[in-house]
Amino acid sequence: MRILIVNPNTTASMTKTIAAAAKAVAAPGTDVMAVTSLMGPVSIEGYYDEAFAVPGMLAEIAKGEKGGAQAAIIACFDDTGLDAARALASIPVIGICEAAVATASFIAQRFTVVTTMERSRLPIEHLVERYGMGRRAKVRAADIPVLSLEDPASNALERLRFEISAAIRDDRAEAIVLGCAGMADLAAQLSAEFDVPVVDGVSAAVKHAEGLITLGLTTAKNGAYATPVAKPYLGMLESFSPAEPLKV
Amino acid sequence: MRILIVNPNTTASMTKTIAAAAKAVAAPGTDVMAVTSLMGPVSIEGYYDEAFAVPGMLAEIAKGEKGGAQAAIIACFDDTGLDAARALASIPVIGICEAAVATASFIAQRFTVVTTMERSRLPIEHLVERYGMGRRAKVRAADIPVLSLEDPASNALERLRFEISAAIRDDRAEAIVLGCAGMADLAAQLSAEFDVPVVDGVSAAVKHAEGLITLGLTTAKNGAYATPVAKPYLGMLESFSPAEPLKV
Amino acid sequence: MRILIVNPNTTASMTKTIAAAAKAVAAPGTDVMAVTSLMGPVSIEGYYDEAFAVPGMLAEIAKGEKGGAQAAIIACFDDTGLDAARALASIPVIGICEAAVATASFIAQRFTVVTTMERSRLPIEHLVERYGMGRRAKVRAADIPVLSLEDPASNALERLRFEISAAIRDDRAEAIVLGCAGMADLAAQLSAEFDVPVVDGVSAAVKHAEGLITLGLTTAKNGAYATPVAKPYLGMLESFSPAEPLKV
Amino acid sequence: MRILIVNPNTTASMTKTIAAAAKAVAAPGTDVMAVTSLMGPVSIEGYYDEAFAVPGMLAEIAKGEKGGAQAAIIACFDDTGLDAARALASIPVIGICEAAVATASFIAQRFTVVTTMERSRLPIEHLVERYGMGRRAKVRAADIPVLSLEDPASNALERLRFEISAAIRDDRAEAIVLGCAGMADLAAQLSAEFDVPVVDGVSAAVKHAEGLITLGLTTAKNGAYATPVAKPYLGMLESFSPAEPLKV
Amino acid sequence: MRILIVNPNTTASMTKTIAAAAKAVAAPGTDVMAVTSLMGPVSIEGYYDEAFAVPGMLAEIAKGEKGGAQAAIIACFDDTGLDAARALASIPVIGICEAAVATASFIAQRFTVVTTMERSRLPIEHLVERYGMGRRAKVRAADIPVLSLEDPASNALERLRFEISAAIRDDRAEAIVLGCAGMADLAAQLSAEFDVPVVDGVSAAVKHAEGLITLGLTTAKNGAYATPVAKPYLGMLESFSPAEPLKV
Amino acid sequence: MRILIVNPNTTASMTKTIAAAAKAVAAPGTDVMAVTSLMGPVSIEGYYDEAFAVPGMLAEIAKGEKGGAQAAIIACFDDTGLDAARALASIPVIGICEAAVATASFIAQRFTVVTTMERSRLPIEHLVERYGMGRRAKVRAADIPVLSLEDPASNALERLRFEISAAIRDDRAEAIVLGCAGMADLAAQLSAEFDVPVVDGVSAAVKHAEGLITLGLTTAKNGAYATPVAKPYLGMLESFSPAEPLKV
Repeated sequence: MRILIVNPNTTASMTKTIAAAAKAVAAPGTDVMAVTSLMGPVSIEGYYDEAFAVPGMLAEIAKGEKGGAQAAIIACFDDTGLDAARALASIPVIGICEAAVATASFIAQRFTVVTTMERSRLPIEHLVERYGMGRRAKVRAADIPVLSLEDPASNALERLRFEISAAIRDDRAEAIVLGCAGMADLAAQLSAEFDVPVVDGVSAAVKHAEGLITLGLTTAKNGAYATPVAKPYLGMLESFSPAEPLKV
Repeated sequence: MRILIVNPNTTASMTKTIAAAAKAVAAPGTDVMAVTSLMGPVSIEGYYDEAFAVPGMLAEIAKGEKGGAQAAIIACFDDTGLDAARALASIPVIGICEAAVATASFIAQRFTVVTTMERSRLPIEHLVERYGMGRRAKVRAADIPVLSLEDPASNALERLRFEISAAIRDDRAEAIVLGCAGMADLAAQLSAEFDVPVVDGVSAAVKHAEGLITLGLTTAKNGAYATPVAKPYLGMLESFSPAEPLKV
Repeated sequence: MRILIVNPNTTASMTKTIAAAAKAVAAPGTDVMAVTSLMGPVSIEGYYDEAFAVPGMLAEIAKGEKGGAQAAIIACFDDTGLDAARALASIPVIGICEAAVATASFIAQRFTVVTTMERSRLPIEHLVERYGMGRRAKVRAADIPVLSLEDPASNALERLRFEISAAIRDDRAEAIVLGCAGMADLAAQLSAEFDVPVVDGVSAAVKHAEGLITLGLTTAKNGAYATPVAKPYLGMLESFSPAEPLKV
Repeated sequence: MRILIVNPNTTASMTKTIAAAAKAVAAPGTDVMAVTSLMGPVSIEGYYDEAFAVPGMLAEIAKGEKGGAQAAIIACFDDTGLDAARALASIPVIGICEAAVATASFIAQRFTVVTTMERSRLPIEHLVERYGMGRRAKVRAADIPVLSLEDPASNALERLRFEISAAIRDDRAEAIVLGCAGMADLAAQLSAEFDVPVVDGVSAAVKHAEGLITLGLTTAKNGAYATPVAKPYLGMLESFSPAEPLKV
Repeated sequence: MRILIVNPNTTASMTKTIAAAAKAVAAPGTDVMAVTSLMGPVSIEGYYDEAFAVPGMLAEIAKGEKGGAQAAIIACFDDTGLDAARALASIPVIGICEAAVATASFIAQRFTVVTTMERSRLPIEHLVERYGMGRRAKVRAADIPVLSLEDPASNALERLRFEISAAIRDDRAEAIVLGCAGMADLAAQLSAEFDVPVVDGVSAAVKHAEGLITLGLTTAKNGAYATPVAKPYLGMLESFSPAEPLKV
Repeated sequence: MRILIVNPNTTASMTKTIAAAAKAVAAPGTDVMAVTSLMGPVSIEGYYDEAFAVPGMLAEIAKGEKGGAQAAIIACFDDTGLDAARALASIPVIGICEAAVATASFIAQRFTVVTTMERSRLPIEHLVERYGMGRRAKVRAADIPVLSLEDPASNALERLRFEISAAIRDDRAEAIVLGCAGMADLAAQLSAEFDVPVVDGVSAAVKHAEGLITLGLTTAKNGAYATPVAKPYLGMLESFSPAEPLKV
């Protein structure tokens, strides 16, 4: 099995963290291809960054599918561009937020997502609602920049611990979901510290992707995810023009 | 990996269908243990049958966990006794309805569950609502007895096809979920016939169970699924007394 | 009028409390038959206990209906096995949780249910949601074992008072619902203490049952509560076999 | 027990139908006082009529409470002025729509309200939603004027039958709720004809009112139903001035 | 353009505040006609006051429409009698609560309404839910009588500030909606103090009314807002009989 | 007042239709600046086209704000990139879908959006749900390509009429919302034909934009719409780099 994981921000070091988390849980026969988007912001913090991360991410999805990937994962907790990717690709595509909340829903009735910046809280709340978990999950922000997760000198981990404590005590969270791809390496450690299940979306998505491949399931194409209509796209750079991957 | 699948009705031939579907998708290293409950109705059609299927199912869960199972699947689409099983076991437990709708949610925005008897329609609608898919999924009943699925002379398959057609046309379903463990062998065939993704809960649950085992996640125990309090249970047969597996 | 009240746990002293509360509000002509289940846990605390309480409760419903009861009440706040009982019986069946929240909805816009143990909080929250009161009612647990309610030396009443205070102050509860059949004798006293209406589900259910009998209304049988299909039930003890009461 | 039933429209013949239905189900010791409002429209068909029916209805509530009523019923299916009446009175007040849907919720999972005119459909749908039954109940209008129910020469009953048939067939209604006080005499007959439970709000409200009285429960006064603040009301006729009953 | 604003309470000094706020934002060609109801309570605090404010308000709507108004605004935050007014009038009618929350929804994802008295909190919460903002908006009461807003010696403004602070800190409100027509003059000042957008419903309604007039849109009449059926209204004073404005 | 309207598809002829509709309702002093995005698809049909329309649309918003616009409108019914635009701009930004449904909510309780292609139906349903109108509005697709609206030889108008008829008859729609900016010139004609209010989002948005400007309200910046954090954006064309307009 070949699974593509796209880091839709342009920070290659974060892709390494993501790839490591993915490979740690991949089945023996699974080939994990982790790529960094070539275009867009170095971190995705809020709606504006999301918007500019989508074209580059879609280019990687198209390239990866052509290269033989059987499923794709978008490794940003905003599930950036997930709907567009599903329309584009004929392989299944999974977002790490939806992967994480589906997984958490199997082991807990109430859980809390802890994300990075306050400006990402409502977008994720909106996703959680859309994925049907609005009554079961809360969202908290630790008020830490995404890239501070890579900086051992920052107080990011401490802030994260503070919110996890609050979630267990005040939200009565039975489980915690880590709300950023950059936290993918922290799940085991935090689960041990707090003695609750801690779900990381990257590794959860790998297992869901393997599952869909084995089950032979791909995105339904007779509705909202119908293949895009071939048409001119003006003013786009040749290298990432959507027209090209689709061969219109 | 060792995964227990309990058929909570007492019809062993249906367990064979379930086991075959499970083994067809299990990963190379996975050992699927499919067992038939020793106590309860021969088929589960509605709330009443569910009630009597639970003690026997729980006995199998307890036995299976003791026998080394790392995850358990309840192979009835009513997710019969799922909450009780989660409280009892320390391994993760998955219902095939929740498995199927989570899987379907990754590949379609709108889908329809087609189940057997009308009396099972509202219980499943209620589950779908609880799993957060009330706005995305509809439930239809083909008005066929569960065991007729095993009788080639019945018109069960024809009735199923009729409702799938109606779902695609009238519900604008992008995907179909088969709403009975006894339909586990029909997914590929019906998907090819109707050219939409068709999800079977048994095989979906196997992949989710493997995923949870690999991720090291088990049911949260600090809330609704806390381990049962040791206490006397009166009037129960030795053989399936809940007190025994728990060693109270 | 003859009304059956089944205490689905096997503690006869609690049945006495329930019977006293029921008789205190029954109309002059009403004959209250309060029975204790012969099988199952001595108290129902969470999903697991519920599962084992259902068969014995159903046996009492069947016996009671045969004995001339015109309506039945399940006197556990989890409304244990209510759906199965409605399918089984041709007389109307009422759960004390649904009875209490319906009654509370006539006298208050916002109210809080105070139950016993934390593990019962989410199951009751789920019931409240199902009964349509999710936006109007909150659920709190006083963290007291069910049977401690019978022990004057315990601090159960004190804990209950603490949560009622919190509900009035923090939830802005206009009324309180007592979330356990074992609290049936406390409504008047607590209402006087806190100067808010306090609703007990047992007595509320008695009045609803009398109402349904007088109105000549019984459970609808053309949907989810259709009479169970006659079929073999394997491995069940003669004494409580569901097959017997139904004469399959 | 003394129960006040106010017909908030000004048609005395309809009050007779209401009174007969109420008395037919009242307990032996219950004294039913059915009164007709002295002010407002002869029938309540839509929001506008509702608005002018409220002051006269409130005057009757105040008068009735002073006259010893222990509970009051507002006998219009729009539950006209129910919130204001609850603020005004210290006795409990019940609307026949809320009474009917609470009763129906005990005997059916899905039911349909059949009301008179199309313009009343959405107001009732809104009530049903508010009472927490939005997912369980549908509302249909038979397109008949309210007062045609009193005219044997009209086709009102025929239109009603047509919608009940449609509800059972198309909504899969398990029970029917009659959506107008003027239909209070039809429940038994229609239930026999269609072989489903048929709920009339007037008689349901009588039983709920008796229940509340026996339970000693009255409207919570520490929230939305706090007693009105004494203040000048300008331009009101002496005879129905709200200031008077409240003795401001 | 001619826009009618009805103050449905009978306090003329409050109408002045309302008129000033309306005129301050009206377009050059807009003629604002602000009138005080001739009948009803001097302030509207809860359901009871609402009920008696409606007939007088409707009389003003009818009079204003006859006088050439092209749109009407009901200037009480309970949107008192809005549905009845829409049925009565052929010009569009807007409530200040719905105007304010629609406006707030364009500039903030989460906002808090701060109203006057606790007894108005739930009615407004109910409106907010009905206008589709239940998940986005909270409601707080400052526990101040409506008319205290006109009294510089009261602590009304101080109480208001206290709740706005709490809303920003505890509800994470991004914007504030002032929940009383009597606060119409405070928006700019409070917005500057707290550095968040503050929305006043009166001025918001004026702009929505101008918009509807320009767009040529009026209330739909083929559903819940159909023109009232002509019929006798008994016991009503000549001066405000609803029959008269409608010429039945 | 200066209002920017961005057509986020790259078809200038459609911008002309949009500009004409906007200018027809703009207040005397309002300067409408209608611009066509320089980058992206010639029409927006589904999620994929949306994704590539956002960067060019954001560039126009930034340019327009710098050029003195006091409010901006995104003239695509998918409200393409609305959240990102709100984060970017300090002036208020309105989508034509949210503008239309807010306007429709003032004049009708139930309404239906009629859009172009089936693949746009669910995205718009999702918006309608988000804007709080999920229970009040339905969405239908006429199965017509967006650009066919500009081709008099197509059957687009006929298809539109067909769905409007169905909406009025089957959805009981009281009003119709036109679900595409390219339909902006059809509202008056269709309203006259079908005798129901017909709302066009472009003109509705102009009036809401004028309202926000007059009220002095701009997007709240202390939450989900906080100004983007300055950071490197890799691989973007100079001409539309988000870094440039923000001067990071």
